[in-house]
Amino acid sequence: RIYVITPTYARLVQKAELTRLSHTFLHVPQLHWIVVEDAPQQTQLVSDFLSASGLTYTHLNKLTPKERKLQEGDPNWLKPRGAEQRNEGLRWLRWMGSTVHGKEAAALEEAVVYFADDDNTYSLQLFEEMRYTYRVSVWPVGLVGGMKFERPVVEDGKVVRFHTGWRPNRPFPIDMAGFAVSLRLVLTNKEALFDGDAQMGFLESSFLQHLVTMDDLEPKADLCTKVLVWHTRTEKPKMKREEALLKQGMGSDPDVEV
Amino acid sequence: RIYVITPTYARLVQKAELTRLSHTFLHVPQLHWIVVEDAPQQTQLVSDFLSASGLTYTHLNKLTPKERKLQEGDPNWLKPRGAEQRNEGLRWLRWMGSTVHGKEAAALEEAVVYFADDDNTYSLQLFEEMRYTYRVSVWPVGLVGGMKFERPVVEDGKVVRFHTGWRPNRPFPIDMAGFAVSLRLVLTNKEALFDGDAQMGFLESSFLQHLVTMDDLEPKADLCTKVLVWHTRTEKPKMKREEALLKQGMGSDPDVEV
Ligand SMILES: O=c1ccn([C@@H]2O[C@H](COP(=O)(O)OP(=O)(O)O)[C@@H](O)[C@H]2O)c(=O)[nH]1
Ligand SMILES: O=c1ccn([C@@H]2O[C@H](COP(=O)(O)OP(=O)(O)O)[C@@H](O)[C@H]2O)c(=O)[nH]1
Ligand SMILES: [Mn+2]
Ligand SMILES: [Mn+2]
Repeated sequence: RIYVITPTYARLVQKAELTRLSHTFLHVPQLHWIVVEDAPQQTQLVSDFLSASGLTYTHLNKLTPKERKLQEGDPNWLKPRGAEQRNEGLRWLRWMGSTVHGKEAAALEEAVVYFADDDNTYSLQLFEEMRYTYRVSVWPVGLVGGMKFERPVVEDGKVVRFHTGWRPNRPFPIDMAGFAVSLRLVLTNKEALFDGDAQMGFLESSFLQHLVTMDDLEPKADLCTKVLVWHTRTEKPKMKREEALLKQGMGSDPDVEV
Repeated sequence: RIYVITPTYARLVQKAELTRLSHTFLHVPQLHWIVVEDAPQQTQLVSDFLSASGLTYTHLNKLTPKERKLQEGDPNWLKPRGAEQRNEGLRWLRWMGSTVHGKEAAALEEAVVYFADDDNTYSLQLFEEMRYTYRVSVWPVGLVGGMKFERPVVEDGKVVRFHTGWRPNRPFPIDMAGFAVSLRLVLTNKEALFDGDAQMGFLESSFLQHLVTMDDLEPKADLCTKVLVWHTRTEKPKMKREEALLKQGMGSDPDVEV
């Protein structure tokens, strides 16, 4: 089973992003989607969306404290996004794991945890690659970090270094989309969480350092030679005409969900 | 049957866009994807992608003539994008229609044609809405034209005007994603094509004017009150670090497809 943890927050493209993401996940057998809203309550939009999605899911929410949130105008590398939400997903998994016994518990031993942002693009093959993860599996990520791709470099079947455009000597210079963790490891290392105060580029390391060393990484995707996931980003839609019409009392009907 | 015509062109996010689009289309029964590359030849990337996609498809190509192509730095409203490719798709449909007789020809009578750009987001419900189109069906489009959504306004079951932020009196102020046409109409009106020289905002009208009047439009999506498709756009990925590494001879392996 694959547990996918997705942080998400309200914005104009949210429903569109969740829609196409759900179409991908619907093709993946045995996927359990943990959607964590960055919001003080679960929203109607996400609740309705999930219940109509046809997916197996858990709906959570956890507001990012204001002092940790990017402000309008901040450069987007200033503060990590989604850290609190991913931690909330991990907490749910640990709670769930502690309540399950017997046959189901044995099944959990083979489960995998993946952190999937709502705006990335995932191939179906990716999920087959991560399905057998003993500790932490890794693979290339396309269109990330100002690069065509970043990837672990594999020699004799082992990860020996990383192809990245920036500080290759970080403990784990890997994007969030570039690894999956065995649930067993998550359940037995309860201190492993994302550090929302981590320096830019060190969020993934703050979590992975609790779980493995570079030596333990399991290279997937043909020894890290295939790009199966892309760090796409969606443009923020311009609302110039909407604002002009709003001033004339002719804005788009606010009762229509977008 | 639904024939979906998609123009596409080579760029860093192309494979990612086609990947998530294909995941949506794989859920739609009886969909035939007509992919038209804006390229002098069919590329290996798109050919390989399509043959692995699991979809029923036709692969075409048609290069936009240089004088009609947007140049680096042009504002993106200057020239319509994808017009020649959609026309090539229409030509293929007409050719195909003219060669089919008997029972299959009767099935074509009930088919529908939809123009789906490679970067938009489509709900699955959208395809159920368009499946029964007698002439031209229409519905709202989210996040388009500087608006939360644009849509036909329906009174007593008929489209009477359009909610749009710009020139509502264009013949058909509807985005490409906001309508579908019966194949029968496409086959019997061979002169209906997109005018690649149309003024900005008049591309859809240049095609639809050959087929219907406003009176004929069939409103879908609960009388045009639901947003089932979003005009999302994907950010162009920055390649700053890639370029810096390239200068040191350490760029990403060009043999790895992204
Ligand atoms: O205030 C925010 C901003 C982002 N996110 C989520 O955190 C993840 C990463 O954010 P984003 O995609 O904006 O980051 P980037 O593309 O810059 O890595 C995504 O799933 C977002 O939906 C969030 O929960 N709260
Ligand atoms: O030079 C080009 C630019 C775009 N397109 C395609 O035409 C459609 C519309 O282009 P785009 O999405 O860039 O337009 P916009 O989002 O600005 O409406 C998309 O399917 C693109 O892949 C194309 O074939 N050649
Ligand atoms: Mn992102
Ligand atoms: Mn587009």
